[in-house]
Amino acid sequence: MNKYGAYVKFTAKPGERETLADILLEAAAAAQTVEECEVYIINLSETEPDAIWVTEVWSSSEAHKASLTQPETKDSIARAMPLIAGVESIPVVPLGGKGL
Amino acid sequence: MNKYGAYVKFTAKPGERETLADILLEAAAAAQTVEECEVYIINLSETEPDAIWVTEVWSSSEAHKASLTQPETKDSIARAMPLIAGVESIPVVPLGGKGL
Repeated sequence: MNKYGAYVKFTAKPGERETLADILLEAAAAAQTVEECEVYIINLSETEPDAIWVTEVWSSSEAHKASLTQPETKDSIARAMPLIAGVESIPVVPLGGKGL
Repeated sequence: MNKYGAYVKFTAKPGERETLADILLEAAAAAQTVEECEVYIINLSETEPDAIWVTEVWSSSEAHKASLTQPETKDSIARAMPLIAGVESIPVVPLGGKGL
């Protein structure tokens, strides 16, 4: 089965990027114990002052979808939503390399 | 010091994506012993049939730049160049998360 990967760009409302990054870092900490989540790295955009990029790798697309139904994920989403102006995603198929 | 990250999109010449991905996977294997290289994951685009995305995290921007002068890197680049139609990069600042 293919792994599932994505680069997800969150555009924060003005002044909210740091708070949004903290929520996403908390979600990443919670993901440490989720075996199906292989990578969940929080990055600041270098070029867009309101943008955050999240690098995700999951064991499968199904595992990623299932994660969205977990109470912890729903709680993170609920706290993040008011801070978010927009979300875009670049879906990819991870083949391998260092860090997988 | 900030870490350095990037999502690098390689657009292969038509029919060359698989060969280019193999060269990049070899480069990723070589990176296993490079301490300053923390992540080097090769991905296929889901939406663009000629595109490959490479997820990179380095301990610093300087470490990334220094890697480009290494003989192994120069050899990989020399072999990949004839297969590449274009390169774009999204530079990011990795803050933390699972996989770092």
